[in-house]
Amino acid sequence: MRVDLQTGVWTGEGVLTGRRTLGDLAHLFAEPPAETDRGQVVYETYGVPEGDHPDVLMATTVLYPGRVGAEFWMTRGHFHTNPARGEMCVTLAGSGVLLLADREGKVATETMGPGSVHRIDGAFAHRTVNVGVSPLVFLVSWMSDCGHDYESIERYGFPVRIGAQGDGWRIRGL
Amino acid sequence: MRVDLQTGVWTGEGVLTGRRTLGDLAHLFAEPPAETDRGQVVYETYGVPEGDHPDVLMATTVLYPGRVGAEFWMTRGHFHTNPARGEMCVTLAGSGVLLLADREGKVATETMGPGSVHRIDGAFAHRTVNVGVSPLVFLVSWMSDCGHDYESIERYGFPVRIGAQGDGWRIRGL
Repeated sequence: MRVDLQTGVWTGEGVLTGRRTLGDLAHLFAEPPAETDRGQVVYETYGVPEGDHPDVLMATTVLYPGRVGAEFWMTRGHFHTNPARGEMCVTLAGSGVLLLADREGKVATETMGPGSVHRIDGAFAHRTVNVGVSPLVFLVSWMSDCGHDYESIERYGFPVRIGAQGDGWRIRGL
Repeated sequence: MRVDLQTGVWTGEGVLTGRRTLGDLAHLFAEPPAETDRGQVVYETYGVPEGDHPDVLMATTVLYPGRVGAEFWMTRGHFHTNPARGEMCVTLAGSGVLLLADREGKVATETMGPGSVHRIDGAFAHRTVNVGVSPLVFLVSWMSDCGHDYESIERYGFPVRIGAQGDGWRIRGL
């Protein structure tokens, strides 16, 4: 398998791919996206599939630039069900925000840019937000037995949103 | 923390660094390196230190080009004491060989070049060899509780060596 270190796209046998459209993610945004925009691809993922026992995995995400109103395109975000299982992330291209929130509502952000390294504490839900004008591409590594809890985010969301302000971004409360 | 995606060098607070000279590695080679060469740096490592509990880690290795006789410069190589703990590797720059060997003497090689992705089975000792003329730079991710067994390699070595042949390389038995 091979990953293009600029675009984040993997090629080769056995690559696991995924994609989310604006329609899939419509409920994440404060304003509903226009019906005519819902076919747009917000992000794609590429990585190695799980093996026959728990082990370290690796993947990239390609998060395209875009906004719904003032709110930047983002990934769904998830908790790990096992809070002792963290995640490592390195940004390959683009400009983003790593949004972190624990179950007590504590929030942190980290700025993502080429080469930025992020050590994600397993107790924090994590979501990435593309605040730039080109694809945000990052590589992550995690243990396959971390457990993914997307449901808490679907139900309660993150405590803050990342919106445009001039040419930059700002954190907005809900 | 930040990693230069071309050179593999990390900067920022808390980066863990290491380096090995030809003197440190002299015993790995079939021919002993010249005394006057033993101060040369063969490879450097950069990464995140272990945390307060077992978790996923990430690091880069910068393996410089060089030879001792016909044998290319290489890393020490190690087994994981827990064979269920593998390792993920992606090459950032340069040209190399990933040398794999299990405890029964089964050997495999994978070609390393920019973007090549390698899923290392935890039962296989792994060593990287720079067969190019520029630094071989790669990023790895593993679980901190994999356990590192360098001693088996110190004692028994790998079953094969990687030597120069014309402009390329070949596997040589011991």
